[in-house]
Amino acid sequence: MTDLDPEEFRRLGHAVVDWVAGYRGGLAARPVRGPVVPGEVRAGLGPLVPESAQPLDTLLAELDRVVVPGSTHWQHPGFMAYFPANAALLSVLGDLLSGGLGAQGMLWSTSPAATEVEQALLDELAGALGLDPAFTFAGGGGGVIQDSASSAALVALLAALHRASPSWRERGVDGTERVYVTAETHSSVAKAVRVAGLGERALVVVAGTPHAMSPAALAEAMAADAAAGRRPVLVCPTVGTTGTGAVDPVRAVAEVARAHGAWVHVDAAWAGVAALCPEHRGLLDGVELADSFCTDAHKWLLTAFDASLLWVRDADALPAALSITPEYLRDGAGDVVDYRDWQVPLGRRFRALKLWAVVHGHGLDGLRAHVRGHVALAAELESWIAGHPDLELVVPRSLSLVCFRHRGGDAATRAVLERVNASGEALLSHTVVDGRYVVRVAVGGVTTGREHVEALWRRIRE
Amino acid sequence: MTDLDPEEFRRLGHAVVDWVAGYRGGLAARPVRGPVVPGEVRAGLGPLVPESAQPLDTLLAELDRVVVPGSTHWQHPGFMAYFPANAALLSVLGDLLSGGLGAQGMLWSTSPAATEVEQALLDELAGALGLDPAFTFAGGGGGVIQDSASSAALVALLAALHRASPSWRERGVDGTERVYVTAETHSSVAKAVRVAGLGERALVVVAGTPHAMSPAALAEAMAADAAAGRRPVLVCPTVGTTGTGAVDPVRAVAEVARAHGAWVHVDAAWAGVAALCPEHRGLLDGVELADSFCTDAHKWLLTAFDASLLWVRDADALPAALSITPEYLRDGAGDVVDYRDWQVPLGRRFRALKLWAVVHGHGLDGLRAHVRGHVALAAELESWIAGHPDLELVVPRSLSLVCFRHRGGDAATRAVLERVNASGEALLSHTVVDGRYVVRVAVGGVTTGREHVEALWRRIRE
Repeated sequence: MTDLDPEEFRRLGHAVVDWVAGYRGGLAARPVRGPVVPGEVRAGLGPLVPESAQPLDTLLAELDRVVVPGSTHWQHPGFMAYFPANAALLSVLGDLLSGGLGAQGMLWSTSPAATEVEQALLDELAGALGLDPAFTFAGGGGGVIQDSASSAALVALLAALHRASPSWRERGVDGTERVYVTAETHSSVAKAVRVAGLGERALVVVAGTPHAMSPAALAEAMAADAAAGRRPVLVCPTVGTTGTGAVDPVRAVAEVARAHGAWVHVDAAWAGVAALCPEHRGLLDGVELADSFCTDAHKWLLTAFDASLLWVRDADALPAALSITPEYLRDGAGDVVDYRDWQVPLGRRFRALKLWAVVHGHGLDGLRAHVRGHVALAAELESWIAGHPDLELVVPRSLSLVCFRHRGGDAATRAVLERVNASGEALLSHTVVDGRYVVRVAVGGVTTGREHVEALWRRIRE
Repeated sequence: MTDLDPEEFRRLGHAVVDWVAGYRGGLAARPVRGPVVPGEVRAGLGPLVPESAQPLDTLLAELDRVVVPGSTHWQHPGFMAYFPANAALLSVLGDLLSGGLGAQGMLWSTSPAATEVEQALLDELAGALGLDPAFTFAGGGGGVIQDSASSAALVALLAALHRASPSWRERGVDGTERVYVTAETHSSVAKAVRVAGLGERALVVVAGTPHAMSPAALAEAMAADAAAGRRPVLVCPTVGTTGTGAVDPVRAVAEVARAHGAWVHVDAAWAGVAALCPEHRGLLDGVELADSFCTDAHKWLLTAFDASLLWVRDADALPAALSITPEYLRDGAGDVVDYRDWQVPLGRRFRALKLWAVVHGHGLDGLRAHVRGHVALAAELESWIAGHPDLELVVPRSLSLVCFRHRGGDAATRAVLERVNASGEALLSHTVVDGRYVVRVAVGGVTTGREHVEALWRRIRE
C-alpha cells in the first residue's frame, strides 16, 4: 500500500487546511502581485523531485518561501483585473470531496452519482437562471460542466458542424463553413475555429453598433456568404464581452441565424450568472432561441476553476458529434448520459461537487447578494469616476465592470493603471476601445468589499 | 464579503478532511460498485439548489446517503478495471493547496509561480523518466500538464498540422492529411482527428504483428499515401495499449515516420510512468526520435485526475499552432512560457502542485516501489492463471496488466467477469482480442495489495 493511511491523512489534511486558512486570512496584507521577474521563481526553488520521501511541512515551507511570493493572488480582495476567478472556500472544500471520492465520470456506469448529480444540478440551475426548460434534461436538452468557456465554444462549434453536414464525422470540414462573431467576441472562438480545422478565413467579423453585434450587418453577411456558396454554421453572440461587458442583441441575432439554419451559441461566460437576480434576467432575453448557452461558475459564481456551465437544447447534439462509439453500440432511448460524449477529453472529475457545495452553502439568496454587492460597488465607483474632472467613462458600466480613461490621453490612462498596480493594493487590467487605451475595473472577488473599492479609488485619484 | 471567514473554513475544512479519511478508510468494506440503476441516484437526491444557505453537514449527509452508495469506487483496493485512476491522498492535499491559492496560470504574468513550478517539475520528471534532454526547457523543448491524454493527442495533432502546412492557421485543413494508428490505438486519437476537422477518412489503421504496429506496413501505407497526393501528418505509436498493454516498436515506427516528415506522438498514457524504474526504461526506446510524448500522472502515478504529462521536442511547436495572439505581439526569445498557448482552454489551474505533492511525499524510490509492487502482484496472478487448467493467458502480461480468458469460450469468460464484479470484492473490465472476449486485470490501485489480488483469484477460480 503506497498511500497515506487515513489517520496520517487526517493529521496532514488538517495542517493543509490550516495553511490555506492562513494564506487566505493573510491575503489582504500582501501585494496583489509580487514584483517577480521571469525565471526568479524557478531559480529560487530547490530540487522538486527527491530520491526519497520528504515530509509535507517542507513542501509547505517551499510554498511560503517561493511560491506565494511568486504568485498573482487571484483571491485577493484587491484583485479587479481581467474577470474574477472566484475560488470561494466552500468550493475548495467541495473540490476536496471530489478528490477524496476520486471518481472518473466518463461514463454513467463508471460512476453513476457523478453523472446524475451533475445532471440534476444543471437542471436546477437552469431554472434558477430562468433558462428555457428546453435546456434541461427533462425538456430534451441538458447541461454539462466543461473545463472552460473555450472548450464550451469548441464543442458547440463541433455540434454545429455536425448538424450542418452529417458527413462531417467521415469527411471533415470542406472550407465553406463560416462562423460569425464581432470584434469583441472572446478570442476562444477564433481558437475553436482554428482547432476545428476551419482556418481563420472561416471567421466572419460582423460589424457592431459600435460594440454589440448588428443584426442587420449579420443578416447581410450571412446572405452574402450563402449566395456565394459558403455555409453559415455558427453564430456566437456574447452577453458581457471581455473588453467592456457589451451585450449583443441575442434575440435579433438568433432570429437572423435561424433563418440560415446556423447554430447559435451564447457566450455569457462572465455575465450570465447575474441572471440569478431577477433584475438582471433581461440579459438573457432571446437565449430561448439559442442552441447552446454558456456561463462560468468559476468566474463570478464562487466556484473554483474549472466549472464552465454549458447547456444545449438538444441532448443528442454533442454525443452525435463527439461520440466515438459506433452508432449501433450507442445507448439509445436516452436512458443514461455518458458525459464522455459531451466533451473532448475522455476522463472527467466529479466537478459538480464543488458547485453543489457553493449553492448549498450560500443558497440562491447568498449568490444573489454576492452579485448585487459587486454591482452596487461598481455603480458607486462609476459615479465617482463620472464626477471626477480628469476621468471619463468609456462605455456605460456593465454590471460590475467599469471602463474608464484619463482625459489626458493614453499615456495618462496607462499611468493610472501602473500606479494602481504598483501600489499592490489592487490589480487592474486594460483593454483598447476605439483605438484608445482603457482601464478596466472588474469588481467581483470573493472577499472584495466597499473598503477595497474605496482604497482603489484613492489610488486612482492620486 | 461572501466567503467563509478563515476560521470557519478551518473548522469546516477539518470536518471535510475527516469525512474523506472516513470514506477512504471504509472503502475496503464496501462493494467496489453499488448495484444502482439509471435514475436511482437522481431520484434519491433532495433539491440541490436551496433558496437559503444550508450547513455543510447536511451536504455530507447527502453524500453518505445517496452519492457514496451510487458511486463506483475508483480508489477501492479491489478496483482493477480499465486502468487505475490513482488519487493518492497526498495528491488530494496538493490539489487542496491549488484550490486554496486559486491562481489562474493562463499566462506567465497571471501567476508566475504556477508556470515556473510546472516547467521545473516537468523538466525534472523528464530526467527521472530517462527522456531525451531535448524534451526539457533547458534542451529547447518542454513539458506541460494537459487535462488528459485525449487533449495531449489533440494538441499534438494540431502542432503536426501546423508544421505540415504553415497555411493551416489561415486556410484550415484540406482533406489530404493522414494520421496513422493501429486497431489498438486509443480512441482519443480518432476523436482528435474528428475534432480537428479531418474526418475519419484521415485515419489510417496500420496492420499489426498482430497487436503492435508493423513498421513495414506503416512504410507501405505512408508511401502509398504520399504517392497519391495525400500528406502523412502524424503517426501515433502506443506504449501500452488500453486493450492489452501492447507496445508499438517506437524506434522503427519513428524512423519510418521521419522519412515522411510526419510528427511522431508517443502515447504512453498508462505505461509511461513505469520508466521511472530502470528495469522498465526499455519501454521508451526510440522515444528520443519522437516529437511528443505523453504519460498520465493521473493513471498510475498517484496523482488525482487531471494531470496528463506532455513533453514536446520543440518549445515553439504548440504556441505556433495554438496562440491566438498576432505574431507581432507574441513573446519572442522564449523569455516566458504562456501555457495558454500550449493547450486548447484559456484558463488553467495550478495542477503542478498535486503532482509535486506526490513526488515530494513519496520520493522516486516510493514511486518506483508503487510501480514494482503492482508489477510483482500481476506477475503472481499471471503465474496462477497460467497454471490453471480452465484458464489461459491471451497475451503476455504487460507490466501490471493481465489479460486472460476461459478455455470454455466467450460465455464462460464473460461469466468469470460477471461473477467477480457481482461479488463487490473486485471490479474488472473486458476487451476483445482477435474477436474473442477477454478479461482484463489492471493491478494498480493506491491501496491494492497482495490480499486483494488473492481475493480476486479466489473469485476467479470459484
